[in-house]
Amino acid sequence: MIITCKKDAPQSEVDKIVHSFESQGLQVNIIHGANYNVFGIVGDTHVVDEKRLMSNPWVENVTRVAAPYKKVNRFFHPEDTIVDVGGIKVGGKEKIVVIGGPCSVEGLDMVCSVAEEVKAAGGCMLRGGAYKPRTSPYAFQGMGTEGILAMAEARKRTGMPIVSEIMSADKIDEFVEHVDLLQVGARNMQNFDLLKALGKINKPILLKRGLSNTIEEWLMSAEYIMAGGNENVILCERGIRTFEKYTRNTLDLSVVPIVKKKTHLPIIIDPSHATGNWELVESMSLAAIAAGADGLIVEVHPNPEEAWSDGAQSLKPKKFKEMIDKARVIANVVGRDL
Amino acid sequence: MIITCKKDAPQSEVDKIVHSFESQGLQVNIIHGANYNVFGIVGDTHVVDEKRLMSNPWVENVTRVAAPYKKVNRFFHPEDTIVDVGGIKVGGKEKIVVIGGPCSVEGLDMVCSVAEEVKAAGGCMLRGGAYKPRTSPYAFQGMGTEGILAMAEARKRTGMPIVSEIMSADKIDEFVEHVDLLQVGARNMQNFDLLKALGKINKPILLKRGLSNTIEEWLMSAEYIMAGGNENVILCERGIRTFEKYTRNTLDLSVVPIVKKKTHLPIIIDPSHATGNWELVESMSLAAIAAGADGLIVEVHPNPEEAWSDGAQSLKPKKFKEMIDKARVIANVVGRDL
Amino acid sequence: MIITCKKDAPQSEVDKIVHSFESQGLQVNIIHGANYNVFGIVGDTHVVDEKRLMSNPWVENVTRVAAPYKKVNRFFHPEDTIVDVGGIKVGGKEKIVVIGGPCSVEGLDMVCSVAEEVKAAGGCMLRGGAYKPRTSPYAFQGMGTEGILAMAEARKRTGMPIVSEIMSADKIDEFVEHVDLLQVGARNMQNFDLLKALGKINKPILLKRGLSNTIEEWLMSAEYIMAGGNENVILCERGIRTFEKYTRNTLDLSVVPIVKKKTHLPIIIDPSHATGNWELVESMSLAAIAAGADGLIVEVHPNPEEAWSDGAQSLKPKKFKEMIDKARVIANVVGRDL
Amino acid sequence: MIITCKKDAPQSEVDKIVHSFESQGLQVNIIHGANYNVFGIVGDTHVVDEKRLMSNPWVENVTRVAAPYKKVNRFFHPEDTIVDVGGIKVGGKEKIVVIGGPCSVEGLDMVCSVAEEVKAAGGCMLRGGAYKPRTSPYAFQGMGTEGILAMAEARKRTGMPIVSEIMSADKIDEFVEHVDLLQVGARNMQNFDLLKALGKINKPILLKRGLSNTIEEWLMSAEYIMAGGNENVILCERGIRTFEKYTRNTLDLSVVPIVKKKTHLPIIIDPSHATGNWELVESMSLAAIAAGADGLIVEVHPNPEEAWSDGAQSLKPKKFKEMIDKARVIANVVGRDL
Repeated sequence: MIITCKKDAPQSEVDKIVHSFESQGLQVNIIHGANYNVFGIVGDTHVVDEKRLMSNPWVENVTRVAAPYKKVNRFFHPEDTIVDVGGIKVGGKEKIVVIGGPCSVEGLDMVCSVAEEVKAAGGCMLRGGAYKPRTSPYAFQGMGTEGILAMAEARKRTGMPIVSEIMSADKIDEFVEHVDLLQVGARNMQNFDLLKALGKINKPILLKRGLSNTIEEWLMSAEYIMAGGNENVILCERGIRTFEKYTRNTLDLSVVPIVKKKTHLPIIIDPSHATGNWELVESMSLAAIAAGADGLIVEVHPNPEEAWSDGAQSLKPKKFKEMIDKARVIANVVGRDL
Repeated sequence: MIITCKKDAPQSEVDKIVHSFESQGLQVNIIHGANYNVFGIVGDTHVVDEKRLMSNPWVENVTRVAAPYKKVNRFFHPEDTIVDVGGIKVGGKEKIVVIGGPCSVEGLDMVCSVAEEVKAAGGCMLRGGAYKPRTSPYAFQGMGTEGILAMAEARKRTGMPIVSEIMSADKIDEFVEHVDLLQVGARNMQNFDLLKALGKINKPILLKRGLSNTIEEWLMSAEYIMAGGNENVILCERGIRTFEKYTRNTLDLSVVPIVKKKTHLPIIIDPSHATGNWELVESMSLAAIAAGADGLIVEVHPNPEEAWSDGAQSLKPKKFKEMIDKARVIANVVGRDL
Repeated sequence: MIITCKKDAPQSEVDKIVHSFESQGLQVNIIHGANYNVFGIVGDTHVVDEKRLMSNPWVENVTRVAAPYKKVNRFFHPEDTIVDVGGIKVGGKEKIVVIGGPCSVEGLDMVCSVAEEVKAAGGCMLRGGAYKPRTSPYAFQGMGTEGILAMAEARKRTGMPIVSEIMSADKIDEFVEHVDLLQVGARNMQNFDLLKALGKINKPILLKRGLSNTIEEWLMSAEYIMAGGNENVILCERGIRTFEKYTRNTLDLSVVPIVKKKTHLPIIIDPSHATGNWELVESMSLAAIAAGADGLIVEVHPNPEEAWSDGAQSLKPKKFKEMIDKARVIANVVGRDL
Repeated sequence: MIITCKKDAPQSEVDKIVHSFESQGLQVNIIHGANYNVFGIVGDTHVVDEKRLMSNPWVENVTRVAAPYKKVNRFFHPEDTIVDVGGIKVGGKEKIVVIGGPCSVEGLDMVCSVAEEVKAAGGCMLRGGAYKPRTSPYAFQGMGTEGILAMAEARKRTGMPIVSEIMSADKIDEFVEHVDLLQVGARNMQNFDLLKALGKINKPILLKRGLSNTIEEWLMSAEYIMAGGNENVILCERGIRTFEKYTRNTLDLSVVPIVKKKTHLPIIIDPSHATGNWELVESMSLAAIAAGADGLIVEVHPNPEEAWSDGAQSLKPKKFKEMIDKARVIANVVGRDL
């Protein structure tokens, strides 16, 4: 950690700063520049609070050399983490996973029938929303518990693990009982109370990146879950907010190699929410696999035009299968199976 | 609501779309363009789900003419809403409110002493964080209940209502009992489960704008609270995320006249979080008053360099008083008192 | 084009608006809504100026149904445009092109030697900057004419067409004489005087997307060139500015299918400038091909650590070749050769 | 300047880095951290090229301690720069300037009549566009030379200096002859060839901030002009691009105190282009003065609904005068005259 101080800071202030670090067991090196003095802090600085340092009027700037996250950091944990989701292994050199299903669960028959089609096409997990985060209070908010139970029944019939979004800590018991992979949505990425609660269970968590969050903030949210004791975290990129209007969000595929480099966690891609448009889903799915992703989570609906939410971004089962078949060849080019 | 359809849509598809609107009691007008057909939907369209429409492959585009919010809309509620916060009236032509206090409550004596200084300087409410949303799990997370009780004691001693941030629905009882104005932080602006829970109480809510949210999304979050039955909502701008690096966030003061035009709700400005730098707080506070804001919420700390969080953005009490004195003159120019 | 008017607009104002459209040969349809009146304008509206309409105080909103661009629009020109760059065909179902070379030309020997390596690896065009847009006036600004002549010599020796950036209209003669593909950089995407000048020549133009521009704005800049008479435009995505700090820019690969749908122009991808980091270049290159791009433009340098600019994002020739070999297999999956 | 190196960098590489700095007359200090080695470079580092350093594979990160600009830096030039525009002084503690006029010059009579009204209302300079940067090639591109000459005639009649936008270097002679203050528009802020050309004249330059540029990039563009020898630069904030849709751009008023702190140059605010909506112009103008701006540049048009461009953001002369009268009182509160 590097701290830049104004050149005219009185010695007593400089001493105070040095002392405060040394009392935390850190070592301080000073470089006297032409216009600034610079302190290099050596030791385990990830507990030092930059904001507090910045409140010292003599401090001009604070820069971290080391990343502020520890448990997600590949530097301290070089081997890939493989997360087991109801028997399906995700990450490392494991088979690439393809998760399919409707945006919202619309009933038992519907979700079971989609599940069969997802499986037949080559998918290995079922997604489906029972609790839906909607911008408008007047929009459909999801079937709730009834939807979760329908998903569980679809698992029973197909054998595929199920993924669904949890929106508040008071539903944790229900999710722990019925759901295999608990999704934290983009809008809740920094709902720290929810992250803390999820740190206390040991079910796998699918942590989506917030719409305007940096990768570092996303990894810090993963750190919240891991710091609580739950190390089963899968990261999911689902598009970020940009000025572009022809897509709902902008899919940032460069996260794939970055996440692989900075962390040991698996990373999967959601091309459906990222683009908001089914016509873009196949090309973005293939691109994600080429970039090295560990999996895809794709919306599949038999009749997108009658979907209760987000039909515009759903693939029909036939299209979904075609995409998987192409993705499989690309997976081989980058040394993976699918 | 305007729906653009591809010119070559079969008549049966066009009929289906028309029928679906008419069955909801809406009236449909068709304009045959050169390359597109356009449907104008007349009636109460705020329950129509754009995403569902977009999933029809013949639909090219959907545009709302009317705003998607209703209860916050000045169109349907022309008079200013005045929110009563523990006896202090906020909004309309009422006196401009200045809320001051530390970022985090650091103990009973500290918060009471700051409260006295805020009051002496001309402030009329006390702010203080007891539950702190922090990016890092290793940073100070707030004093919790002890902090809330310290705030309540400071209210008892000074008579000033108190403002504090609520981060999850399971703390609502504590907040309803002790806090006068419940703040929803920027990161929770779209925590819909929290918004729904706050819609069921009748304590005033201070709803901060999310870091990357549009004004429309912000008003939709206010609509969530009001749709639940709680009409005591005060909006608070605290800076948005931009590419700029010299400030923590970019304060968007144009929200003041826009909020006044689109809604009947009060709007206050937080220059401390917006800038992250106490040196910018006075000029941004004066600018906010000149722009027509109903109030300010400003961080005040006796020794910013020793603050437990965000000291860099805190004013000392003396500076706080100087700012208020200048703001008072500007308030008069725009027809208000302070 | 749809215009929303306030309900209480006087009839005389409404008549004035209707008349102004009819006098331009457009047909006007009126829909009387509950709270607004809506005008649907039918005809060739791409010359109508939205901003001028918005200045009418009775007008609430203006929405385009049709795209504001015409010559780049696939709607009016369904066949793919194939651009011929010094004998190499770009676009449609032609062979995917890979352009390689140094960020800056650093001398004749250097550029000729890189050219040989690019060719040997499977590249088919040579890139190299002679005029460099640099944020700082104190940074290396390029070799200028000497660099252009060195590129021309490299073409002579290898037979590969050359690509270089033009920064101002007063260099057009030099570029027309020596350069095969004239690049307009991201910072000049809306330098309209330069675009107009390039519309008057018939050399191919490589138009990079601006750092914060929408696809529509980018296509409007292509429209400037084409409206001037030069139809040889190739689009190039090179990353957009986002809040992310781990990459220099965020590569937006969803532009590939969108550009293919909205326009008939070729699209190539620059993964080097987008990421700013050679370690990400291979995965982003493969992803671009999987997404359907018509080509890649990649920085190649024999000793990146000694490059005069942007070495951090340059591949060594060996790495470049490995990337091309993998890309070739992916090209086949999406029905192309490379 | 601080350079972070990987811990496992071979000594020979470390020596090479150290040597390269020392050979440039800079002094190098090394701090050995737990996981990284850190080099502190002391001396005049503003010529060091970060990108080149980053291309060394052993270098992890490069951070500047000192700002990359020198001539605009208040650190090296503590006194306010006062720019003389045709006899009107701008900056320091001089009278606040209010510049008014139409977006586009629409003819001699029109511009002269607006000029009279601007002057009568209390304005002291006339703005007007003769060369217009338009997103669409089909939109009105300005009257060109005829517009410039009309502006010059308006100056003759009213005595007010004139401001107009220059879009390319080949018009410099015309502007030097006729225009008092040469505006560089937001889209040309990084048109480096134009900036270099303007550095060679000595007429005052009004440098607008780019739509998505940081303050640092903006100051680097000012540095381009000043490095060329022209020290008469006035900065102008005109709104930045954000996700907000209710305004055209987001006016960033925090630039005012930041520019005052980082530089010695004057700063003026353009509330018309920032908001795109005349209803917001008065409140944003008053806010700008309260924030400490040295001036305003405001669009004024006698019949906004008939303006050839941007009527929606133009004030009528009566409104313009009312705004100036209020701004005058606020100017006094912050210790200025207007």
